[in-house]
Amino acid sequence: MENQSTPIISHHTALITHDNFQDNLDQIEAFAEAIVKKLRLNIVQKISHSFEPSGTTLIYILSESHLAIHTWPEYKSIHIDLVTCKRLSSEEFKKAIEEIFKGRVHATLSFKAL
Amino acid sequence: MENQSTPIISHHTALITHDNFQDNLDQIEAFAEAIVKKLRLNIVQKISHSFEPSGTTLIYILSESHLAIHTWPEYKSIHIDLVTCKRLSSEEFKKAIEEIFKGRVHATLSFKAL
Repeated sequence: MENQSTPIISHHTALITHDNFQDNLDQIEAFAEAIVKKLRLNIVQKISHSFEPSGTTLIYILSESHLAIHTWPEYKSIHIDLVTCKRLSSEEFKKAIEEIFKGRVHATLSFKAL
Repeated sequence: MENQSTPIISHHTALITHDNFQDNLDQIEAFAEAIVKKLRLNIVQKISHSFEPSGTTLIYILSESHLAIHTWPEYKSIHIDLVTCKRLSSEEFKKAIEEIFKGRVHATLSFKAL
């Protein structure tokens, strides 16, 4: 039985190893916007930072909580952290990420849900 | 044996039920700054949003990744999501959160690590 005394919180992460990785903010934003669109989320505010010598962070505050993307170009890695206060299954999240990344380049995906 | 082909990513969350909850940005920022200080993290940028009718989101981009705090005043709940690209044990995270929240008010804490 579900505990009604705490909010609904769905929490999913993905670590993507991306063979043809372009670490620029435009590409990261394109990924983030595709995730938001596929999962029918709503962007409230966004913030980004480019690290020296490399690495990008992009975070959206969503009306459903947040989406944070960090990149580690030296590992060709993209880490996605999505917290939503609406119910989101692991299958929905995984399907969205696979559709966005698998179609473009060879990518290895791993998923965890909290 | 550790996989050296992916970045170090420590990921911890806490859900706190806070009996004497004041949902204002100053209080949330005080919690966030205390977490950052105790865990020796570094703030790069911050962003916040106050939702209608209630609820606050505060996110810090850290030089070590990000800290996101969401509140649900209707449940007296605070959700903390911390991703760091430095090694951070569950014990260190839990100790910091307990020290910050237990001393002030009656709070119920639950923790998960990815």
